[in-house]
Amino acid sequence: MALVFHKLVSVVEALRLLNEKVGGIRPLDVMEVPLEEALNKVLAEDVRAPIDYPPFDRSTVDGYAIRSLDAAGASDVTPVQLKVVGKASIGLPPESAVGPGEAVEIATGAMIPRGADAVVMEEYVVRSGDALTVYRPVAPGENINQTGSDVSAGDYILRTGTLLTSREIAVLAGLGIDKVKVYRPPKITVFSTGVELVPPGKPLSIAKLYDVDGYVITAMLRELGAEVTFKGILPDDYNSMRSAVHEALESSDIVITTGSTSAGYGDMIYKVFNDVGAELIVHGLKARPGKPTVIAVKGRKILFGLPGFPLSAMMNMYNIVAPVVLMMRGLEPSAELPRVKARIPLKFQAGRGFMELIPVQLVQNSDGSLSAYPLMTGSGSIAGIGLSDGFIVAEEGREYFDENEEVTVNLFSPSLRIPDLNIIGSNCPGIEVVLRVAGLTKQSRVISVGSMGGWIAVKRGDADLAGTHLLDEGTMQYNVHMPKVMGLENDVYIYRGYARRVGLLVKKGNPKNIRGFEDLLRPDVTIVNRNKGSGTRVLLDMKLRQLLKGERPEKVVNGYTYEVKTHTAVATAILQGRADTGLSLEAVAVQFGLDFIPVGEEVYDFVVRKVKLNKPSVRKFLEALSSSDFSKELSRSLPGYRTLPDSGKVVYP
Amino acid sequence: MALVFHKLVSVVEALRLLNEKVGGIRPLDVMEVPLEEALNKVLAEDVRAPIDYPPFDRSTVDGYAIRSLDAAGASDVTPVQLKVVGKASIGLPPESAVGPGEAVEIATGAMIPRGADAVVMEEYVVRSGDALTVYRPVAPGENINQTGSDVSAGDYILRTGTLLTSREIAVLAGLGIDKVKVYRPPKITVFSTGVELVPPGKPLSIAKLYDVDGYVITAMLRELGAEVTFKGILPDDYNSMRSAVHEALESSDIVITTGSTSAGYGDMIYKVFNDVGAELIVHGLKARPGKPTVIAVKGRKILFGLPGFPLSAMMNMYNIVAPVVLMMRGLEPSAELPRVKARIPLKFQAGRGFMELIPVQLVQNSDGSLSAYPLMTGSGSIAGIGLSDGFIVAEEGREYFDENEEVTVNLFSPSLRIPDLNIIGSNCPGIEVVLRVAGLTKQSRVISVGSMGGWIAVKRGDADLAGTHLLDEGTMQYNVHMPKVMGLENDVYIYRGYARRVGLLVKKGNPKNIRGFEDLLRPDVTIVNRNKGSGTRVLLDMKLRQLLKGERPEKVVNGYTYEVKTHTAVATAILQGRADTGLSLEAVAVQFGLDFIPVGEEVYDFVVRKVKLNKPSVRKFLEALSSSDFSKELSRSLPGYRTLPDSGKVVYP
Repeated sequence: MALVFHKLVSVVEALRLLNEKVGGIRPLDVMEVPLEEALNKVLAEDVRAPIDYPPFDRSTVDGYAIRSLDAAGASDVTPVQLKVVGKASIGLPPESAVGPGEAVEIATGAMIPRGADAVVMEEYVVRSGDALTVYRPVAPGENINQTGSDVSAGDYILRTGTLLTSREIAVLAGLGIDKVKVYRPPKITVFSTGVELVPPGKPLSIAKLYDVDGYVITAMLRELGAEVTFKGILPDDYNSMRSAVHEALESSDIVITTGSTSAGYGDMIYKVFNDVGAELIVHGLKARPGKPTVIAVKGRKILFGLPGFPLSAMMNMYNIVAPVVLMMRGLEPSAELPRVKARIPLKFQAGRGFMELIPVQLVQNSDGSLSAYPLMTGSGSIAGIGLSDGFIVAEEGREYFDENEEVTVNLFSPSLRIPDLNIIGSNCPGIEVVLRVAGLTKQSRVISVGSMGGWIAVKRGDADLAGTHLLDEGTMQYNVHMPKVMGLENDVYIYRGYARRVGLLVKKGNPKNIRGFEDLLRPDVTIVNRNKGSGTRVLLDMKLRQLLKGERPEKVVNGYTYEVKTHTAVATAILQGRADTGLSLEAVAVQFGLDFIPVGEEVYDFVVRKVKLNKPSVRKFLEALSSSDFSKELSRSLPGYRTLPDSGKVVYP
Repeated sequence: MALVFHKLVSVVEALRLLNEKVGGIRPLDVMEVPLEEALNKVLAEDVRAPIDYPPFDRSTVDGYAIRSLDAAGASDVTPVQLKVVGKASIGLPPESAVGPGEAVEIATGAMIPRGADAVVMEEYVVRSGDALTVYRPVAPGENINQTGSDVSAGDYILRTGTLLTSREIAVLAGLGIDKVKVYRPPKITVFSTGVELVPPGKPLSIAKLYDVDGYVITAMLRELGAEVTFKGILPDDYNSMRSAVHEALESSDIVITTGSTSAGYGDMIYKVFNDVGAELIVHGLKARPGKPTVIAVKGRKILFGLPGFPLSAMMNMYNIVAPVVLMMRGLEPSAELPRVKARIPLKFQAGRGFMELIPVQLVQNSDGSLSAYPLMTGSGSIAGIGLSDGFIVAEEGREYFDENEEVTVNLFSPSLRIPDLNIIGSNCPGIEVVLRVAGLTKQSRVISVGSMGGWIAVKRGDADLAGTHLLDEGTMQYNVHMPKVMGLENDVYIYRGYARRVGLLVKKGNPKNIRGFEDLLRPDVTIVNRNKGSGTRVLLDMKLRQLLKGERPEKVVNGYTYEVKTHTAVATAILQGRADTGLSLEAVAVQFGLDFIPVGEEVYDFVVRKVKLNKPSVRKFLEALSSSDFSKELSRSLPGYRTLPDSGKVVYP
């Protein structure tokens, strides 16, 4: 079961090899499309203007076309008399030329009559029948938009390789061009592979996962402008797999599979690519995540076998598939991905022999600059995909990113929407209620890292607010001891949040007859624990310490080392039989149809750095806490929750 | 013909009125779509995780699932012996649970067997048959990716109003969600109006223009995610116009017309909207460009009558139509348009009672910061649309933008591709040849502002290179007198470019029998002149001064005030009979099939600021000038052109 990668190849080298083997990665065909279908295609020809624009001299104002010499010296006291001899309307040839002493009435955009070299605005004339009195002189050429002054016939207008957006469509239409030569977008077939996969919407049996890769790779390729067919999950049978890939290759420029690439899993894809007659050129990429990648070439066609972990597959899309697709479309390999500058808030290792793509979350600092927090979720995460704003690239030769180093962040979306309010800390369904009442749900990001994690995030400055429920055993008070612990005595306020009833969750009917904390020591009872640093964990550890008198809990309490991050995960573990009980909230018990053994009430507060108080979203959030709307909505929607007399008040300092 | 706008309404007020009259601009319908069709739609429901992710505890490494207590204290000298009792493969339930002293072989991603609380990596064990020797301890939970640690069942995952990109698709797929509720994209019908319009591809008769608006508005709406039908140019007949709009309104959420909105042009659209039963709420917008705009409402449906000038129509799309379309899709009104910060290089007036949208070109400074040069092309320009990178907004209350002021630029495209090489100055087809030989065509932007304009751009720092051919009458030398004139003696180099033959262009067969400059004084000859500041104009003025001896040329030379910006525009004017002759290039005469009367040869050079010489693209350009490839390609492709012995050499200082 040892990993046998034939030879790890760097991303740069892989692209070079690919380019060499297919005889240059470039667009395959040129096709002519009507202008209406040209949007988002790439131009395959240099376009020169067939006509001038504007195609005739035209007026830029409403007024009278005249000979400028005729109005020389005109003023309020020495006006000039001219004779109106006709009219020039939009879309029609002027009724008359302009001779000496003559004028032609003209509308904005209408054609300048022969003989006229200027237009006097209607504000500066008085007309009576045919007689026109002009009170101002005009310079030659004044108020005339001259033929070809904008675009001259023969000018290069657009070049091969230009992506046709609405702006280019405007220029082409204006010059009368109704057909353009563009590159045919590459045809790509996508397969998912893996015995563990089930398509979304179907029931999930034990040890199975929903297919993520097929959907996300297909969506990413569409975003890249390719024509994609997603053929679903390949059957787990070598012959059907081979013939499906073979058939897809006939009708595609690129075939992409995900999964089944790791050496530990039988090298299926390696064999399939080989057996459809393709030449293997990469088997293992110096990329993190994304090492187990297979690349093969057949003629000018390319086969990519991407790793199964969603984040790995996505990162390989960015570092190797996207450049190839863009080049096949006729674009630069690095086109399309928008970028911003940001600073790294804390030193961390990266690269070290691999090209590493690291998802980051962006936090806007008060001076408008951005900090990029690396998401260390691992390549198996899907939440990390949703929570990150983009990624940074660590080249192979890099060892670490330094604190405060400036980096370029490749954004996942063209428009960066940084949340207005970052709430980082303890997980609580009550936060949702506050956000709803305050009207802040859309612009907020809630990240669950536990109460302690929240305090650290407040100290670092990336949390606008942190939810916290840490009990001080000495004073039996919640949270107010923490500023001193964190060295933040002069820097933070703590606002009272609300109270919530905590207790032990058990299956409906309480089959193990659990009554309190002492039952957690029973050998026939297995618990699900919360993560270290969460307020609930601190409470449990305190209670267990009182019961155990010096013995280590992991030696006595079954499941003590089984940690989960959120209240709902505790409920799910009990529901699915992985544990018999766990400490959580009454509201969660009700939500999941579990029984609840109350052990007390805890206080949930919000900590905020003083400097963050001038953010309108922070103020809105804190104001909502003391509103009667919030009080009503909290008890209505969350059983076991209530506001306190001092909810929304400062309890520290 | 006076402009009668009923009452100018500000953009903010127009949006407020619209919102009030339609009872809130918001999405109309919710529809359920399969995940495969959800890309780029907007979520119409809050999505909570139906399952945990991962849905089971899984291994993050290849190795053996064990009980961590069993390996406590294991080391190279004190290894621990365990018994392998089975295997856990991806996608399958583990073959066996793990009891004390037991181990189960496990693959990355496979399900952790019951009883095990850690995985020891295969690097730290030696296996022989069933016997497993473990050389390292593992902590509880080590190498395990726990159920729900990434996403917990019940967690809010995505909210109403989220734009579904590939990342959100990944999260939804992973949680097994195969259908989502999204907002139906608005249906929009677009018409062009105007007697002057001809569809692209058809011949253009006198005083007519190609329809730009229909195509660009349709493309912009597609970019905004709407479902658009473009119905072409409306017939110029009131009844057909009314019934076409009436019919479109039946099947659309929004109807957009362009053109025919200015008061000077009969108020057609105003009447049409009124007669289909809609309530007129805006007739004239405090926006520049874009004042002649009509907005009407019928029930929840909206009718926009946009002005006819392309830039005006486009700017109104950004300031009033786009927010409405985005809100109807369920997004924030300001979503989607990417933005960058830049500085204004020179003070200019803007706003003054109107909301003004000003197209800008971005130039990257050597420190990486951006300067935003306003494009003062006027709303009739189509080249300006193609050349600008985005726009800045001057609010109604603003009077000017100050030099060095920081502004936010709304980008037309998500990815900003600032040209690597800005060549601003005299217009010459030879520049194209240099770019081709140097391989720089794609990353360059060539802006024609004449030789003098080029010197100014070099002085301001926005031109990397400027083409110049200015003759000093005193020394009869080209260009080398200019650094002193511009106060740039210590700051620039001038590189010798090439020579090009200039002369008078006349119609094939020279019908007016023009022999030289003296013929330009003949009363039966009309010339087309070049713009002030161009080297060609300077040459002509010099020759005319010698002939005219103090008389003003505009009094004597017909067409002297008829100025065009480029050589090709001179040729077109002669070809179309608007002028008999003009000073230009032999190459252009050949290109347009005109006859050529040579009057001499001029030298075309390139000026560059010393600080720009470290730009690789600048160096590439200048190196190409002395290459033999360039010399050959120049004479081959441009008649009358030749390189000089010192081409590519520094001629100043």
